Amino acid sequence: MDKQILMANLSWVDYQKRVQNGKEAVLLPIGAIEQHGPHLPLATDLLFAEAIAKRCADAIGAIVAPTITYGCKSQCRSGGGNHFCGTTSLDAKTMIDHLVDVVREFARHGVRKLGLIDIHYENDMYVLEACDLAIRELKYAGITDFKIVKPNVNVILDLERLRPFYPEGFSSIALEHAGKLETSVMLYLHPELVQQDRYPPDVFAHFPPYDTFPPETQHVPPSGALCPTSGASRELGETVILNLADGCATAFRQGFAV
Amino acid sequence: MDKQILMANLSWVDYQKRVQNGKEAVLLPIGAIEQHGPHLPLATDLLFAEAIAKRCADAIGAIVAPTITYGCKSQCRSGGGNHFCGTTSLDAKTMIDHLVDVVREFARHGVRKLGLIDIHYENDMYVLEACDLAIRELKYAGITDFKIVKPNVNVILDLERLRPFYPEGFSSIALEHAGKLETSVMLYLHPELVQQDRYPPDVFAHFPPYDTFPPETQHVPPSGALCPTSGASRELGETVILNLADGCATAFRQGFAV
Amino acid sequence: MDKQILMANLSWVDYQKRVQNGKEAVLLPIGAIEQHGPHLPLATDLLFAEAIAKRCADAIGAIVAPTITYGCKSQCRSGGGNHFCGTTSLDAKTMIDHLVDVVREFARHGVRKLGLIDIHYENDMYVLEACDLAIRELKYAGITDFKIVKPNVNVILDLERLRPFYPEGFSSIALEHAGKLETSVMLYLHPELVQQDRYPPDVFAHFPPYDTFPPETQHVPPSGALCPTSGASRELGETVILNLADGCATAFRQGFAV
Amino acid sequence: MDKQILMANLSWVDYQKRVQNGKEAVLLPIGAIEQHGPHLPLATDLLFAEAIAKRCADAIGAIVAPTITYGCKSQCRSGGGNHFCGTTSLDAKTMIDHLVDVVREFARHGVRKLGLIDIHYENDMYVLEACDLAIRELKYAGITDFKIVKPNVNVILDLERLRPFYPEGFSSIALEHAGKLETSVMLYLHPELVQQDRYPPDVFAHFPPYDTFPPETQHVPPSGALCPTSGASRELGETVILNLADGCATAFRQGFAV
Amino acid sequence: MDKQILMANLSWVDYQKRVQNGKEAVLLPIGAIEQHGPHLPLATDLLFAEAIAKRCADAIGAIVAPTITYGCKSQCRSGGGNHFCGTTSLDAKTMIDHLVDVVREFARHGVRKLGLIDIHYENDMYVLEACDLAIRELKYAGITDFKIVKPNVNVILDLERLRPFYPEGFSSIALEHAGKLETSVMLYLHPELVQQDRYPPDVFAHFPPYDTFPPETQHVPPSGALCPTSGASRELGETVILNLADGCATAFRQGFAV
Amino acid sequence: MDKQILMANLSWVDYQKRVQNGKEAVLLPIGAIEQHGPHLPLATDLLFAEAIAKRCADAIGAIVAPTITYGCKSQCRSGGGNHFCGTTSLDAKTMIDHLVDVVREFARHGVRKLGLIDIHYENDMYVLEACDLAIRELKYAGITDFKIVKPNVNVILDLERLRPFYPEGFSSIALEHAGKLETSVMLYLHPELVQQDRYPPDVFAHFPPYDTFPPETQHVPPSGALCPTSGASRELGETVILNLADGCATAFRQGFAV
Repeated sequence: MDKQILMANLSWVDYQKRVQNGKEAVLLPIGAIEQHGPHLPLATDLLFAEAIAKRCADAIGAIVAPTITYGCKSQCRSGGGNHFCGTTSLDAKTMIDHLVDVVREFARHGVRKLGLIDIHYENDMYVLEACDLAIRELKYAGITDFKIVKPNVNVILDLERLRPFYPEGFSSIALEHAGKLETSVMLYLHPELVQQDRYPPDVFAHFPPYDTFPPETQHVPPSGALCPTSGASRELGETVILNLADGCATAFRQGFAV
Repeated sequence: MDKQILMANLSWVDYQKRVQNGKEAVLLPIGAIEQHGPHLPLATDLLFAEAIAKRCADAIGAIVAPTITYGCKSQCRSGGGNHFCGTTSLDAKTMIDHLVDVVREFARHGVRKLGLIDIHYENDMYVLEACDLAIRELKYAGITDFKIVKPNVNVILDLERLRPFYPEGFSSIALEHAGKLETSVMLYLHPELVQQDRYPPDVFAHFPPYDTFPPETQHVPPSGALCPTSGASRELGETVILNLADGCATAFRQGFAV
Repeated sequence: MDKQILMANLSWVDYQKRVQNGKEAVLLPIGAIEQHGPHLPLATDLLFAEAIAKRCADAIGAIVAPTITYGCKSQCRSGGGNHFCGTTSLDAKTMIDHLVDVVREFARHGVRKLGLIDIHYENDMYVLEACDLAIRELKYAGITDFKIVKPNVNVILDLERLRPFYPEGFSSIALEHAGKLETSVMLYLHPELVQQDRYPPDVFAHFPPYDTFPPETQHVPPSGALCPTSGASRELGETVILNLADGCATAFRQGFAV
Repeated sequence: MDKQILMANLSWVDYQKRVQNGKEAVLLPIGAIEQHGPHLPLATDLLFAEAIAKRCADAIGAIVAPTITYGCKSQCRSGGGNHFCGTTSLDAKTMIDHLVDVVREFARHGVRKLGLIDIHYENDMYVLEACDLAIRELKYAGITDFKIVKPNVNVILDLERLRPFYPEGFSSIALEHAGKLETSVMLYLHPELVQQDRYPPDVFAHFPPYDTFPPETQHVPPSGALCPTSGASRELGETVILNLADGCATAFRQGFAV
Repeated sequence: MDKQILMANLSWVDYQKRVQNGKEAVLLPIGAIEQHGPHLPLATDLLFAEAIAKRCADAIGAIVAPTITYGCKSQCRSGGGNHFCGTTSLDAKTMIDHLVDVVREFARHGVRKLGLIDIHYENDMYVLEACDLAIRELKYAGITDFKIVKPNVNVILDLERLRPFYPEGFSSIALEHAGKLETSVMLYLHPELVQQDRYPPDVFAHFPPYDTFPPETQHVPPSGALCPTSGASRELGETVILNLADGCATAFRQGFAV
Repeated sequence: MDKQILMANLSWVDYQKRVQNGKEAVLLPIGAIEQHGPHLPLATDLLFAEAIAKRCADAIGAIVAPTITYGCKSQCRSGGGNHFCGTTSLDAKTMIDHLVDVVREFARHGVRKLGLIDIHYENDMYVLEACDLAIRELKYAGITDFKIVKPNVNVILDLERLRPFYPEGFSSIALEHAGKLETSVMLYLHPELVQQDRYPPDVFAHFPPYDTFPPETQHVPPSGALCPTSGASRELGETVILNLADGCATAFRQGFAV
């Protein structure tokens, strides 16, 4: 499957045939290298995003562009904070410039439909800024029919489908970092990268209602996981992936059709 | 009150006495010029932030720095979108640079405790990036005891206290833009700027679970208000302001004490 | 008056009616937060600029945009220098980017006549650069009928009208910082912000015919005032304000008519 | 092997154990998405660099950081030119900023030895600039023992070992783009990505002794391959990879030992 | 003389001997390529600055660094405006970055006294910004004894010494562009570059008391000269040059001695 | 000759006549201030480039623009490294911005053919990036017929013509820095700037096959010359200059004719 879906694997001639004149959409995963507890790999968000992107591309007939590997700075309350060893982040300006650069290139290729897949919460606003700047610059170049669609995975996630896995109720996606949900996703996608003997103690991180700089790291569990992992399962992971892949594919279909 | 609280009104000598050696905190409101329906002023978020800042400064004995007037780009789902006439936004990079610049200056003044008050959701992530960059640069200058505290008003807002005003339940702060809550706040703070005969039709905006660029403006109510205004009242506004001022003051006390 | 003149107070609908298709001009005050001696507020230049802007808007039927609060770095010979506590300045690049950003936005709104009011000498050249860059970028966007007019208050100031107040002759506007003229302006505009019991000793600053970096602060009077305040009066302030408001209004009429 | 070598796959805890206090080196591949003829994948340079990096990490006991995916603009004479569909490049400034950002992060992690693996000629000078800027900034942060080593693959390539495969003589690495050498490397590393039925006609590109902008594309073979592919073989590819992996490992050992 | 005064002509060994440990000052001329009427060369300001720099270096025993060739944008009222053919200007940001870069390098060389010679009015404020930024960055690098001195030629110019040449009174240096004074300077320095048969008609430019963007070019004399050339003479030029060289040398002596 | 060839010496009127409507080409030398051993001046590359530019301009009827004085950072293996005292370099970004700025200005003048002459190897890739960015921006301004030609002096250099001077064979242009070839060029162009009694010991620099940051300066001969000077002669210098001037002129003729 990958061979025909991944732009990285295509020759330029094959790629050109598929994208020129705005034919096929290109889906671009945006990654992150960020601590995900002692049991999950640093690339968790990246692998998560790529998995969704490939499934969407398969579903709607699109090409997956090479992932932007590094993401924006981890915040304490959403990713544990950027003080963790291993978390490796770009300045916001670099992410913005990077995304603008590749949009400019895709537009030159003839692409007119670009989908963005981003799982790393801290990328979101910088990605939106880049989209605005890219569309603005494309106008200067006379290109006015370029469309970017960015699904909001937090909204797409169907809490109904999660319910069987969370009899006590799904607390909040906002606190889910390296916890039951993400661990499940990795168990489904890359079980060989999950160290099941290293699950951190079950705790919910509690943050004061303010951010500080430099960050007050005492509010972050030392493990880096912001919520319990107990109950993580391959089945939950599959449910999440299928739900999001389905929902994102629908988002792309609708967004590009407009 | 303002005369002693507003940095803008102080002479440099009076200001210096209060901030040198890290004595008093400086609270910096970050604003926005953004459409808020046909009935509220473009500066709604700015006025909201300044009101909180002044009350906090009064409560904790701090100085309010002059507001950064213009904010970051409005997004459809949180502010109606940046295509509205009147919405006047900075590029993200400009906001980041601006905030870094003034932090550098406050640090030079001797300030060591800086509080940020931001009501405009779209500023948030860029402000956090600026804080990170500023703290990084201050380290290069040998300053390691500068602390920035940024209360999260969405978390501080006490839904219990809102309940009497929302018998049907408070839908979601995420969708509150130019609706009952913000209208109430303006009725309390600046009733002369609320055009009560221009309330838009009561509708809840519904967005697809994805963002698009250029934005799909058909999902945004033509008025720019993302939720109903019915039931707006000075009393609700007062409750919100007092709640947030109280909560932010507590946040500053805690954050600076650490 | 303010309600209809200040963009900040207008709803987007009211604003749009007035500016779309280039109808009304928008006047943008550019401020500064800069020491003005022990007796004047840090926002002196900002308040000065806003006062002129409002009077001009009233005279020519224009809208006053929210002020760009912070200005460019104070220089010793014109503002005492950027080493003073309280003086809070932007890097030049930030000011340039900021102004370009808002010009881009005003152009999107339909504005075609933008007036700039700047009293802070050190903003001047950076503002001109921003105007050049903004007009350049608007051309890329296909907008070629946008006009920016920036009155030169130093030239507009009518020395004849000042003569009665300066029987000994008006030394030089170049050295007027926190002295008789600016103190008078504040006495007229905001007497409550003038600490008349804190007037600094009457001295004229004398600078060597060169600038140094880091600045040689020994040439700057410790008070921060570069010239005497003796003789400051509300009447002189009124004369200055009326003269400049009148002159700037004329400048806008002529500049926009071309 | 990959699990322990790839930073992406490590948990932050495992990564930290290995890099803190400058223990293990981190090797960072720098990629490119660039046309490589009708028969090779767009990610050829990236896959090439990653293969070298993994072998080096295995040899010297280092960690391979996630690849910087996108590279700098293709030039006609070295990569066919940036006008090709599929070639997707960053502006130089973006690459520089990106690399500076991740060096800053690795230094924060405790890494003190960073190896760079770059096969894409057009990245070279921008990477060197980034290294200079990063080392400069680390000094401001008080870090003076960070060492970056970047092997020069063109020099390391041992022409003696190539001789059996080039009885007619190895023309020049400078012209090798998507030709016999790179095709062989891909046949060795990723035979499934080589379309052997799509080899372009054997031609040597000839360029005038000058560059032009916009580029004179008539000098570039339409296939994008700058030299013949005839004679490509898995054996040659293996020889090249083993030679370069060996040479780069030696370079790292020497460079980090100094 | 030039051989020993011009850094460009020195070997690095000879240069090092003279500047290391902050021994000799380096004087850096900052130029401009700007129209100076039909009779003067585009490099007038650059040649003017270099002439002053060499004489100062001779007087105080300093080295003249290679000139920054291109200057900042010409403004209508001071240089005729940047719409003239031939006027070739940098964006402000570029000038600022350029100057910061070379200051950083001079500091690395061991230079501790840097003099700047600038005749082109429009460079002034951007140069001051660069000086501030450079000194700021040098502090991060631990260098706190670097001193920059920039003479203000407009203040140094001794109107008394000009009086014999201006029996009717010297109007204003502000309007002197390509007029009697600059023409005289070129007659003295580079008579072969003055086209005496091409003197423009004697007119004084009159500008409205405001700037406009795009510029209102009708206020600029078509020749580009802003004041009359009649009476230009080699003697006046010599007087100006000797006066300024003397004054600048004194400024450097004083500034560096502090 | 210079008077009519050097843009710096022309009046704007004369310049305009020659370049408007794309008539004559403009040739822009790009320089460097870089150590060239104890015997050659810091401006060697700059003087070299200017000499070629003037001869080309004479040959093809073009104008030589004022040189961009400072170049990009010296690398150990090509210029001895940027740690040498006297070597004074721009950050890459500054060079890129500078060149983009002047291209924008030449385009405004009506120039449509711009030739670049660069001898300093380390400028090359940054200059190419600037050319790409400039052409991109000119498109936004609606200018699509601007052509930049940059001869590659390393390719143009005719090894056949060097042979009589190198009976032992010409080792490699890559290692030629401040050696026999460049010394010869200076003996021909500026013998007064060559200190023949200061020739460094004859050595060939040997570098390991990798770059390091900070640079390993022990591989660079202390003199800064990377190869022997023995045998340098005015005749060889003349041969090189005439060869390169001829070849570059041909390159311009061909490049602009396309």
